[in-house]
Amino acid sequence: MRQVGIVGVGHTKFGKSEVPFIDMLCEAALEAMDDAGAKTGSKNVIDQVFVGSMGAGMINRISGSASAVVDALNLRPAMAECIENGPASGASAIKLGYMAIASGCCDCVLVIGGEMMRVVSGWEATDFVATMLHPEAEYKYGITLPCFAGLFTRLCMEKYGVDNRDLAIVSVKNHENACHNPCAHIQRKVVLERITNPAYINATNPIVADPLRQFDMCPVSDGAAAVLLVAKDKQEELGFGHKKFVRIAGIATATDTHVVANREVPTDLLAVRLSAQKAYKMAGMGPEDIDVAELHDAFQILEIAESEEVGFFPRGEGHLAARRGDTAIGGKKPVNTSGGLKAKGHPLGATGVSQVVELVRQLRGEAEGRQVEGAKTGLAINFGGFGNNVAATILTTK
Amino acid sequence: MRQVGIVGVGHTKFGKSEVPFIDMLCEAALEAMDDAGAKTGSKNVIDQVFVGSMGAGMINRISGSASAVVDALNLRPAMAECIENGPASGASAIKLGYMAIASGCCDCVLVIGGEMMRVVSGWEATDFVATMLHPEAEYKYGITLPCFAGLFTRLCMEKYGVDNRDLAIVSVKNHENACHNPCAHIQRKVVLERITNPAYINATNPIVADPLRQFDMCPVSDGAAAVLLVAKDKQEELGFGHKKFVRIAGIATATDTHVVANREVPTDLLAVRLSAQKAYKMAGMGPEDIDVAELHDAFQILEIAESEEVGFFPRGEGHLAARRGDTAIGGKKPVNTSGGLKAKGHPLGATGVSQVVELVRQLRGEAEGRQVEGAKTGLAINFGGFGNNVAATILTTK
Repeated sequence: MRQVGIVGVGHTKFGKSEVPFIDMLCEAALEAMDDAGAKTGSKNVIDQVFVGSMGAGMINRISGSASAVVDALNLRPAMAECIENGPASGASAIKLGYMAIASGCCDCVLVIGGEMMRVVSGWEATDFVATMLHPEAEYKYGITLPCFAGLFTRLCMEKYGVDNRDLAIVSVKNHENACHNPCAHIQRKVVLERITNPAYINATNPIVADPLRQFDMCPVSDGAAAVLLVAKDKQEELGFGHKKFVRIAGIATATDTHVVANREVPTDLLAVRLSAQKAYKMAGMGPEDIDVAELHDAFQILEIAESEEVGFFPRGEGHLAARRGDTAIGGKKPVNTSGGLKAKGHPLGATGVSQVVELVRQLRGEAEGRQVEGAKTGLAINFGGFGNNVAATILTTK
Repeated sequence: MRQVGIVGVGHTKFGKSEVPFIDMLCEAALEAMDDAGAKTGSKNVIDQVFVGSMGAGMINRISGSASAVVDALNLRPAMAECIENGPASGASAIKLGYMAIASGCCDCVLVIGGEMMRVVSGWEATDFVATMLHPEAEYKYGITLPCFAGLFTRLCMEKYGVDNRDLAIVSVKNHENACHNPCAHIQRKVVLERITNPAYINATNPIVADPLRQFDMCPVSDGAAAVLLVAKDKQEELGFGHKKFVRIAGIATATDTHVVANREVPTDLLAVRLSAQKAYKMAGMGPEDIDVAELHDAFQILEIAESEEVGFFPRGEGHLAARRGDTAIGGKKPVNTSGGLKAKGHPLGATGVSQVVELVRQLRGEAEGRQVEGAKTGLAINFGGFGNNVAATILTTK
């Protein structure tokens, strides 16, 4: 199969966007094009634009965002489509970019993930996110994502001995990492004692969905991220030869039951396991080859559970690895060096692309202040629904 | 490049759906799987599901429809994504299905297009459709699709001598064709005199957006359509060998300015021309090779203009061809044998897939009552925005 890789990355400052949705997407895209060294007149180089977003239609009331981006960036008549796969929309868009190039239909594809979530607030944001659940069996009964995550966490606590302090350890680590990521939404160090001490925990870290507290889940953020994909055999010809080629070695998605209650083992994240296995197989690699990973910690328990499902740690021992510091920078398997969804933020459609941007920066050795020394291969897990539809991506410079 | 074709088609009765959105998608999908002869246990045959829809999020408040379909059809862990490209979402989803197979990532892809529009009505439906226009430069000022189509029609009248009767001729032809399509929304013959006679035209065919009247544009419909794509080299192995292989010979999209006012020649539909040229080139064919076509007559003027842009008739002469009956069944270039968007209906995301379903039926010789004798090659144009993003697909049994 044709080799496909990334030659440019862009990322807005996550948080509250001060520009309209399409402009925010363009900001990330232009940075990726600049990063790749795309020159004036490069408009005819880009064959296809994919925009990954969950709420462009639902909360921003915009259809055809990808066409709007093509026009704004003067890339006409490039092809353009929007991709929606809940919070995994970004990674799905990259997967389709991979396919577009591997098929020979395209040589160069611009992929942008973006979400403008802060136009809704409070319960409206929670309700928007909940639309990724089953429309008849779950959503209409008022089930939300924090509710599922709370139930899931409680089961993991009972089954594997995870405790609230473990969740806080993951949170503290990710906040620490985010302090070194200028694009992170929350660049603030958090002290473990402050968010775990029973004497004042209800003030510093209030309950949201028992047993989950505020620091056990991600904030609501606006943001966009972009990557420029090219075929290896066209990298020179298209003028991107000076850039280190970060190859997409494996990329795959997998689905689980769309109704969470139908899962045989409710603490398993089957789609994480299957998508990772597929990506490993495609890359001819295994968990032992991964130097750095971005896992989808929309809830802190998910970073722990995913670190097991992708094979980093034995089942039920992810929290022990977190306690030992294995997932910190300098540990055996650094996870979420970007700050993760917890502290970098989680603008849904942006996240899958943002994770890949972080891995590219790590593999290029450009992750200043949070660099994993000598990182050559990275893995990203982008999690849609409550594990209904998950994407795994493996990047390498090997 | 790997050969990709269609072995199964499904299509709901367009009009008002009596089942929820996901169920409607599944109904079309199951018919396509049955049509292909997919057997029990064929679940592992389908690698990927694409759902093309414009309003699943915006008006049905559902994210991740594709995951819901995979689960409902018991196709887990098949990959799943939703594709949005305004009213061209369906053709875009087929394009991505083509790429997925051509890349070697998949062997068999199920593509479903669907829209449940009648949950909104009157001005709400018009407003929903208008969200495909530029969010800042057009939509927010209250511009609608009928308004653009009215302006476009007036320009064509002044420039090329198109008149209201020409639009009515196209409408009457498509209504006639729809009488033979059991899936059409409006299966009713319309008499030219009834909708053109000045004595009672304001009663039978009232003005909507001058110069356009009710019979010059499509209705608001619910509906879904599905196609099962397979790699030619896997057709036998996957158990679809008994089906006539309708090959996708060419498929491409192209974008034009997202702001209609920025077009140099406002009567040109550049993206129609460019996408058709790309598809012809890919297929190694030209307009002379096309035996039957489905053109995107959301407004009747578009059927006329598109018939010129795809090279069937010289510029400015599409209406003359319609007058001569060239586009009727039995004419030189039969167009919209299905009834077109005018009479078959236009559930936005469904339309691109529905057009391809009609072509497959024509090329298989299964278009009872509306069959174009000896048709071997067909062309579909699926039109997004007001020509902002257009898809051209060429199918053949040659």
